[in-house]
Amino acid sequence: MTNFTNVAIIGRRNSEYLVEQVTMLARFLQSIGCKAYIDSSVSGELDCSGYKCGDLQQWLDIIDLVIIIGGDGTMLSAGREIVNYNIPIVGINQGRLGFMTDIAIEDMIQAVSDILVERKYRQEERTLLSAQVLREGKFVYQSLALNDIVISRGEIGSMIEFEMSVDTEFVHSQKSDGVIFSTPTGSTAYSLAAGGPILHPNSKVFSIVPICPQSMSNRPIVLSDDVVIELIIVKDTPTIIHYDGQEYTDLQYLDKIVISKAKRPLKLLHPVGYNYYHTLRTKLDWSKRVS
Amino acid sequence: MTNFTNVAIIGRRNSEYLVEQVTMLARFLQSIGCKAYIDSSVSGELDCSGYKCGDLQQWLDIIDLVIIIGGDGTMLSAGREIVNYNIPIVGINQGRLGFMTDIAIEDMIQAVSDILVERKYRQEERTLLSAQVLREGKFVYQSLALNDIVISRGEIGSMIEFEMSVDTEFVHSQKSDGVIFSTPTGSTAYSLAAGGPILHPNSKVFSIVPICPQSMSNRPIVLSDDVVIELIIVKDTPTIIHYDGQEYTDLQYLDKIVISKAKRPLKLLHPVGYNYYHTLRTKLDWSKRVS
Amino acid sequence: MTNFTNVAIIGRRNSEYLVEQVTMLARFLQSIGCKAYIDSSVSGELDCSGYKCGDLQQWLDIIDLVIIIGGDGTMLSAGREIVNYNIPIVGINQGRLGFMTDIAIEDMIQAVSDILVERKYRQEERTLLSAQVLREGKFVYQSLALNDIVISRGEIGSMIEFEMSVDTEFVHSQKSDGVIFSTPTGSTAYSLAAGGPILHPNSKVFSIVPICPQSMSNRPIVLSDDVVIELIIVKDTPTIIHYDGQEYTDLQYLDKIVISKAKRPLKLLHPVGYNYYHTLRTKLDWSKRVS
Amino acid sequence: MTNFTNVAIIGRRNSEYLVEQVTMLARFLQSIGCKAYIDSSVSGELDCSGYKCGDLQQWLDIIDLVIIIGGDGTMLSAGREIVNYNIPIVGINQGRLGFMTDIAIEDMIQAVSDILVERKYRQEERTLLSAQVLREGKFVYQSLALNDIVISRGEIGSMIEFEMSVDTEFVHSQKSDGVIFSTPTGSTAYSLAAGGPILHPNSKVFSIVPICPQSMSNRPIVLSDDVVIELIIVKDTPTIIHYDGQEYTDLQYLDKIVISKAKRPLKLLHPVGYNYYHTLRTKLDWSKRVS
Repeated sequence: MTNFTNVAIIGRRNSEYLVEQVTMLARFLQSIGCKAYIDSSVSGELDCSGYKCGDLQQWLDIIDLVIIIGGDGTMLSAGREIVNYNIPIVGINQGRLGFMTDIAIEDMIQAVSDILVERKYRQEERTLLSAQVLREGKFVYQSLALNDIVISRGEIGSMIEFEMSVDTEFVHSQKSDGVIFSTPTGSTAYSLAAGGPILHPNSKVFSIVPICPQSMSNRPIVLSDDVVIELIIVKDTPTIIHYDGQEYTDLQYLDKIVISKAKRPLKLLHPVGYNYYHTLRTKLDWSKRVS
Repeated sequence: MTNFTNVAIIGRRNSEYLVEQVTMLARFLQSIGCKAYIDSSVSGELDCSGYKCGDLQQWLDIIDLVIIIGGDGTMLSAGREIVNYNIPIVGINQGRLGFMTDIAIEDMIQAVSDILVERKYRQEERTLLSAQVLREGKFVYQSLALNDIVISRGEIGSMIEFEMSVDTEFVHSQKSDGVIFSTPTGSTAYSLAAGGPILHPNSKVFSIVPICPQSMSNRPIVLSDDVVIELIIVKDTPTIIHYDGQEYTDLQYLDKIVISKAKRPLKLLHPVGYNYYHTLRTKLDWSKRVS
Repeated sequence: MTNFTNVAIIGRRNSEYLVEQVTMLARFLQSIGCKAYIDSSVSGELDCSGYKCGDLQQWLDIIDLVIIIGGDGTMLSAGREIVNYNIPIVGINQGRLGFMTDIAIEDMIQAVSDILVERKYRQEERTLLSAQVLREGKFVYQSLALNDIVISRGEIGSMIEFEMSVDTEFVHSQKSDGVIFSTPTGSTAYSLAAGGPILHPNSKVFSIVPICPQSMSNRPIVLSDDVVIELIIVKDTPTIIHYDGQEYTDLQYLDKIVISKAKRPLKLLHPVGYNYYHTLRTKLDWSKRVS
Repeated sequence: MTNFTNVAIIGRRNSEYLVEQVTMLARFLQSIGCKAYIDSSVSGELDCSGYKCGDLQQWLDIIDLVIIIGGDGTMLSAGREIVNYNIPIVGINQGRLGFMTDIAIEDMIQAVSDILVERKYRQEERTLLSAQVLREGKFVYQSLALNDIVISRGEIGSMIEFEMSVDTEFVHSQKSDGVIFSTPTGSTAYSLAAGGPILHPNSKVFSIVPICPQSMSNRPIVLSDDVVIELIIVKDTPTIIHYDGQEYTDLQYLDKIVISKAKRPLKLLHPVGYNYYHTLRTKLDWSKRVS
């Protein structure tokens, strides 16, 4: 079992009450013999005596655990940043519990104690997607997504068009507002609003969900997550690729986009009682009836 | 590589032109040194000299290959019957090509020759679902499905209600017209009409698709196919369980239904050029645009 | 302005606390100079001295107002029964407020007083549908629906098939689990679960919503409510027609069903503050967000 | 019956074969005693002797009929331009028949002859929507739409938020990619791709269809077309309003948008055999079955 000695804390920028909470957490970490590293997303206004304060990037090689205080959005950006360092993450939520940040702020010390001291937790791996953009055969952009890769039009008024193949087999050409490539994690986010299915985090798949497709017979499709997908942009109209709705770059006519599972999954540590279906019921209000 | 010596032929009952086609196929099988066993679904009106004619059941232990002449419906019933004997199947379609019966009748001899003589084919495994019905803790029914298990109301007018758990974790209770548990194979059949996603045959998942659920936030969910699902019928209203829309039994108040992947997959043999996405495009008319 | 002298009370059968509430309401009606007629749906266990107790049918010619204590289901059956007598209805709900029964039981006396004494109310008209069944050209059944006419299969396993025309123009043939013809009132009931749009009660339309149609390009369609729709059942498979999910009759191969707006609308009286969009928000939980 | 003396011809810009077709049509118009006015959208490369060539705008007061040669997109822009002049339109389609341009180019002369000489046609009125943008109470933009008014985000990554009221009654606040206000004419265009219902051109309604709404219980709603809808933009994020996907303007935080039926409908003249349902079947491929 891993020893969590060096523990980093990441916050959501501009969050009001964060200083107090981070200080409490850092002191608790010290009290149990851990070293606390506070990312500059929160450290600006902190008394940093006793902890390391600074840009998390410089310590990624030695950090054993990252604790995020924020929401699912904070988790997305942190996840993409640290996934290649193989560091597990614990998510604390300041507000309404998220799908990934599933520990309430008032339970923070107890939960962190259970995980770090008692060594009681449930580890879960979350797949990320990688999307590489090639222009005239040359690499121009690459990034990861914990939720989704979205290729969509720059502005309403002109649908995008692309051709898609999977493992070099032609699938179809599509004219639509866009298309979402969603991980299981992302299946309860934007993909759900576009009519995509919920994918359990343990399923080894991702989904391809069209956004307002022109063809009425286009439907979400679920593929094994070991495939390689290629898209070619075949219409010269403003087209954008987004990673988790947080990073993006413009695409050009005839650009090729190669999408596949990222090399490493993200490790999430949950409290022992964690239950995915409980989160689903709560977030999606599954017990609600119309009449 | 398997030796296909004993080859059975199954037809769709009451199909008009079948005798001629089966005779041609049986003679061809003889000509290449195979023994032909013609199932009683077609053998009634045949000249059976030179072949075995009778109920396929008696020969299942020695048959090396089954050739189906019919449609996807014929494949479903044959698939459930022979899956436990581990016999591969080839599907010939008399009419419009199906998702599984993907060889046109006019290409039959060529395709069978390629498979049996040239040994050129693409083997694919298709997962089946098993659903067991327990009443007061005792077994009352069990069967398999290559497409889907559907639990639905006996007649319009009274929604059914059930509680569902996955791997002993409670998922939710649902009030609806019914629920579809679909394999990847079944995902392009009834499940699609009910709004479910398409699942690629290689994905190790199945989907749970509600039929007209009362809650507006109920959505199709995709699970790894190694889970065990349990349903409890919690409303005393006419409720039926269907297997591939071909077999069914009535359910009673408080019946428990246990659904999981069947022990063995069905082996389909396709011609070398077989391409799932090509079938999708053709069957779902994916190139069709509204305006 | 109408004089509400003779006021009938209808209840939901087998409702536990109804006697007390009906008695309170009947006494209040007496106290303001009205005559109370209590329908046998509730009168069985009542002290009937001072009121008329019996089958509502016998008094329909003299009743000026009907007060329903129950839910939307009670309103549906009462609505179909009295619509041709042109009697306005007030709906009291014992439980969670309904779309039509929009007065809480604890506000009953105040609301009835506002309507009968203060003459303050908002009158609204709700369209009903009529569906007539013809067999070999002869009338065999007819009834009304305040919510919906549903034509669907008797049991899962065999889709129904019908041809539809509107004002004698052929629309299409459909193969599906069924089809819903919904009034604006019914558009928030079963139709919504099947994917139909919400129709505002003031819109002079109804919707035709397919249930699990085989064709992927079948969509809900909204028509002016002055059309005449004809369906012909073109497949010999168990098919049923339902009126509000409360009445039904079996259909046969080649039966013709003629659907049109009923001659008279139902008059609903609401408290002055009644707001349709408020009901929508509350019932459909429109402020709920996923993340 | 109107006398069609002055007839304008509008084309789709940059259409290759248009000169020949327009010349043929203009000559035919001359031969039956009409005066032809050819809009500058096509007149640039024409021999204009014998006809008026120029900007249609200058003649709108005297034109009796407009003939459009193009597609539904050409009809949209022409429709918005001439609707207030009360001039009927005939639509000729060069390619695949549209919903409004329902006369094939090879039937052009015959159809125009039937309409202008024989006076045989079917007139139909199509409702337009008007949307006015107010900023700090002051008018900043207004235009019409024959298909749809779309309010949507400027780029993927930040949902828009607005509050909506109808006839001064609050409906709800919505967070989504956007919202479509569709006429019956537009209900088979973008609205359909977003999951909206088909509205028959004779129905006196329009639909409000959310695009990827965050709330899972948001559904398309159909309202009588005599309502006045007001939206307030309540989030400071790039938001755009589009008219028929052809005109647009940026919206700002707290802008109010007032949407209502345009004062005048567009008059379409169809050949006598015109049938809306036939167009639906053809365009939406309603007879297509999956299996």
